[in-house]
Order: sequence, then structure tokens, then C-alpha cells
Amino acid sequence: MNAAPESMDDIRKLLDAQPGPSDTARDAARERESTLTKPPGALGRLEEISAWLASWQDRHPPSVNNPHVVVFAGNHGVAARGVSAYPAEVTKQMVANFEAGGAAVNQLSRSAGADFKIYALDLDTPTEDFTQNPAMDEGAFITAFRTGWDAVNADCDLLAIGEMGIANTTSAAAVSHALFGGVAEDWTGPGTGVTGDALSLKAKVVAEAATYHRDTARDAIDILRRLGGREMAAMAGATLSARYKNCPVLLDGYVSGAAAAVLEVRLPGSLDHTLAAHVSAEPGHRRLLDAIGKTALLDLNMRLGEASGAALAINIVKAAAACHKGMASFADAGVSGKSE
Amino acid sequence: MNAAPESMDDIRKLLDAQPGPSDTARDAARERESTLTKPPGALGRLEEISAWLASWQDRHPPSVNNPHVVVFAGNHGVAARGVSAYPAEVTKQMVANFEAGGAAVNQLSRSAGADFKIYALDLDTPTEDFTQNPAMDEGAFITAFRTGWDAVNADCDLLAIGEMGIANTTSAAAVSHALFGGVAEDWTGPGTGVTGDALSLKAKVVAEAATYHRDTARDAIDILRRLGGREMAAMAGATLSARYKNCPVLLDGYVSGAAAAVLEVRLPGSLDHTLAAHVSAEPGHRRLLDAIGKTALLDLNMRLGEASGAALAINIVKAAAACHKGMASFADAGVSGKSE
Repeated sequence: MNAAPESMDDIRKLLDAQPGPSDTARDAARERESTLTKPPGALGRLEEISAWLASWQDRHPPSVNNPHVVVFAGNHGVAARGVSAYPAEVTKQMVANFEAGGAAVNQLSRSAGADFKIYALDLDTPTEDFTQNPAMDEGAFITAFRTGWDAVNADCDLLAIGEMGIANTTSAAAVSHALFGGVAEDWTGPGTGVTGDALSLKAKVVAEAATYHRDTARDAIDILRRLGGREMAAMAGATLSARYKNCPVLLDGYVSGAAAAVLEVRLPGSLDHTLAAHVSAEPGHRRLLDAIGKTALLDLNMRLGEASGAALAINIVKAAAACHKGMASFADAGVSGKSE
Repeated sequence: MNAAPESMDDIRKLLDAQPGPSDTARDAARERESTLTKPPGALGRLEEISAWLASWQDRHPPSVNNPHVVVFAGNHGVAARGVSAYPAEVTKQMVANFEAGGAAVNQLSRSAGADFKIYALDLDTPTEDFTQNPAMDEGAFITAFRTGWDAVNADCDLLAIGEMGIANTTSAAAVSHALFGGVAEDWTGPGTGVTGDALSLKAKVVAEAATYHRDTARDAIDILRRLGGREMAAMAGATLSARYKNCPVLLDGYVSGAAAAVLEVRLPGSLDHTLAAHVSAEPGHRRLLDAIGKTALLDLNMRLGEASGAALAINIVKAAAACHKGMASFADAGVSGKSE
């Protein structure tokens, strides 16, 4: 049945065969919601979250008992072009920081009561510089995708997905540009903090790469192989895998969003089991969310990546589920309904 | 020293004498922030929250160990004018629901690890219909204000303030209109769900009352006495009291915001120790936040009141403090800094 994919065609088949939402659980959520002691709709998006959670967990009431945060790290050949404000060795150093519990996402995962795991993807072998060649061959791409696929545990009931990788906003910009068109400047932002000439260079790199690979790529999945990074392939794998495991997903920022958008472009609806946890200060992210039809839960001017926004949003989803499950009904509480 | 006020002039004196922020704690927060393993500014508003929390808790590192949620309930004479979709007895019924743990805010407080307390303010004696008379005489106003003043415990280090009161969005609209001008329709919204003729009537009530009392009120505090409710007086009292107790405040929605805005209009800067936890779907709230210069943390289309948005935002503040305190520095983690 739903074995991990062994080829790009397997990924396409898994997308085509992916499960849909549970209408039964969603209807049960909506029915219960209407009985709870509040004016109809007064909890706004929390009510939508409860119905979404039920429909993709395939259970009612929905609950968040085992939230997981997974972060994938990869290195990028294009970093050698000088597109980041930090040297490439920072990827490996930050992986050590994640493992030691010193990064923002460690604190945010703990604060959300979530399990945290970091996956370092072949850091000593950066992807190819995608201005010269495809970032990955099929073997490298599938290996990374499967790491993400396998990272989703069966007991996980809410998954926050993020990344670390020096130069990967360049990769996200190239993927987004190739998927959605426009001009490179639309998708290129400061990332960790590049400005001036370095930012212009970054946009030029994005333009060259996206134009070249867009014309030769077979489809969106192939765009990810050509312009993405190992951590992006893994995030796409985790996103699709979670769908098969009744595990709703919180997408993080620009890089996470670009990796996931590949699935949506290949087959619309493939991100229905995901919410955009936040909108990043990286300007391309807002444009990307528009392109995939998502409205972020949080808008806090964050631009860190490493699943920080997604981990933060776990609390929102938990709170929605807590209200849905714990609130009294009008009948039980003896509260009068709306006047006629 | 800072005894509870016994007159409206005492309130004015307490406002004039209110403590300012700790520059020492704020500077310590900013200094530490710059050493943490992330690009400068990458945690966006979480970084601002940490500095704000430190400066108003007067300690570094800031922390949220004793968050409290307080909800004040009052009844409004103007409810008899048919301005709400629910009958006035719902205020008392919902107080019982809060006490039994069945309301949304009970679940949200638990989800945030916060202590919750409900204060019912003389529910059997609604305020006067403010289209005819001032809502409260000075005695009633001070009694309610003091309830809020006394509700802030010395050990509380983050306070979420909210309310329950059938017809109180009418009161919030009248207070806002009297404070900030415009036309009544700018400030009048559906509240619990009034539409059509009932909404037009609500705007008419707001216009009449605000115009009359604005012309006779001595100042913003007096506007609150004339057009507010007991729960609004109490929220203003709690907001000011918290400032004296080094306890930063999360304001909730429209009614909570209007009560607090009175302090800001009387003396600009009086809400610097508060954050707007969310922006409500009630349209007047966004306008009110603009008027007092606040940008909400959350925008989730909620419009329930009862501190629901403020309780939800406790998690955000906790997360900010957790990052600030728990993250490793570049030096400690051996992570390279920004390239030159």
C-alpha cells in the first residue's frame, strides 16, 4: 500500500491517490460547534480550525495530543554565489544548536508541548549550483523526499514542518518564480539579511535559474528537484506523508511554503490538510500564500524559518481543539439562546 | 501609597503618578537579544514583546510564570432598548457557565496555563439607560473601578482582561464615539449578531447617547462613568492597577479596548504597558486600535469577548519570553556570525 516512494513517478502516483477529508468528522464538528455557549461564529478562525482538524484527523472531537515539530537541514551549492549574509558552515553549526536545544524552535516546541526532531541531510554534500545544473539528480531527490516521508510518525496528530539551510531563500525564490511566473524580484527578498548589490545579485541568480529550469522541467515535482534543496524535498515528502497518516500540517514560512506549493501546483487540493501557520516578513511569502490560496494564522513579522512560526501556531490549534471539546452547550449550561 | 481610589479625582491622580517602564530591564533585553542564534530581528514581534515584557515587569530576563485571566460581568440598562440579539439574563447565565468551567475562556485559560477568575458586578442592578441618564453615579462607578483595581494580584506577571455583558458593545460604541468622534455608524457593529433594523436602532442609540454625554462630560474618565458599564469601569481599574504592580496587560476586544482607551485619552502613554491581544471582527475595534496606536497580535476573526483573544495571546507572550531566556548565544553555540 502506501510505501515510501522510490521514484518521481511514485510521488506523482501517491499524490493522485492521496486520501481526502472526512466529511463525517467535519460534519460532527460543525454540528457540535453550533450548540456551544457563544454566538454562532464568535470564535472565528478557531471554529474553522476545529472543523479542519476533525476532517483531516478523521476523528471527532479533534484533539492535539502528539504535536511534532520536524526540521530538515540541507546545504546549497548556490551558496557559493554569495546570496546569503551568513557562511554555509552555519547550517551545520545550527544543526548542532538544534541538537543541543539552543535554537528558537527548541524553546517554541517546548512552549507548545511538542516533540522536536532535527534531520540533517547530507550536509557535507551541498546540492549542485542550480544556475549550472539541476540541484539534485533523481536519486538524491528521492532520498531526501523519503527522509521527510519517514519522519512522520504514526502517532503524530499535528505536524509543524520547517527547515534550516544557508541560501535556501534563494532556492525558495527560484522554485516560486518557476511555479508562478512574475519577475525574479517579486520572489527575492533579504533572507537572513542581504541588501544592496548582494540582493540584486540574488535576484539575478533566481531569474537565470528559474527561467532555465522552468523551460526544461517536466512538472512541478521536477522543478523542486531542479531548483530546491534536500530540506525542501524532505518537507514536501513530510507534507504528503502526513496526509496519508491523518496528520494535519502547519506549514512554516517561505521555504516551507515553496516546497509545499510544488504539491499544490502538481495537483490542486494537495495542501488542503495544511494551514499556513504564519506569514513571514520575507516578502515573497505573502505572494506565495496568495498563489496557493492560504491565509496565514499569524502575522508577527517573523523571518527565521526553522519551523518557528509553525511551532508557535501549534498553541492556536490546541486552543481551538480545547474550546471545541471542553465548552458547554447552551442546553447543558442553561444559557438562553438568541432572541427571536 | 498606591491605595485603591476612592473618588474620580483619585483615579486622575493615580494616572498622573503611574510608574513608567524600566529602561534598565529593556536595555538588558535588547542587549541579550542581539547575541542570540538568529539573524537580527528574525523573531519579529516576539523580540519586541520580550523587551516590552522586561520593561514593564521591571526584570530581566522577563518571564511569564503567573498569568492571570480576569473577566468582569455587568448588566446594562440600555439592553432594554433591544440592542442585543440575546436577552439580558444571559449575562448571569454565562457567569454561572464561567464558574462551572464551560465557557470558551475557561478552555483558553487552561490551554495557556493561566489562572482564571470571574467577577460578577451587581448583576441584579443594571446600569441606567445612558440614553436617559449617566450609566453610573460616582459611587457606582468607583465601586466597580475598585473591583478591577483589587482583582490584580501581586504575584501576577501577565494579565489578560475581558468582559461579559449583554448590550455592552453598544456601550463600547458610545464610549468610543464620545472619545474619538466620527459618526455613530463608524463604531456600531453587530455585536452578538444584530442586523437590519435592530442594527440601525443600535446606531441611533449610540449617536444620541454619545452626543449628549460628550457635551456634558468633564473628561474621558467621566465619559466612562456616563456611557460605560460596571465591567468597563472594572477593566479600566484593573488596567491601571496592573501598571502599579509591574504586571503587563493583554487587552481583549472592543469592549475591553474602549474601557482602556479612556485612560489613554485622559493621559497619553497610559496604555504603554498593554498590548492589543487581537483585533475583533466587530468593526469598531479596528478603528479603536488605530485611534490608540496599537497593532493587534492576532487577527483571527474572533468576536466573543470574555477575554478569549487575550487568553489566546498569552501563549504568544510566553513563547517570546521562552525564546529570549532559553536560546543560546552565537558564542555559546559556536555559530558563526554574519559575513562581512
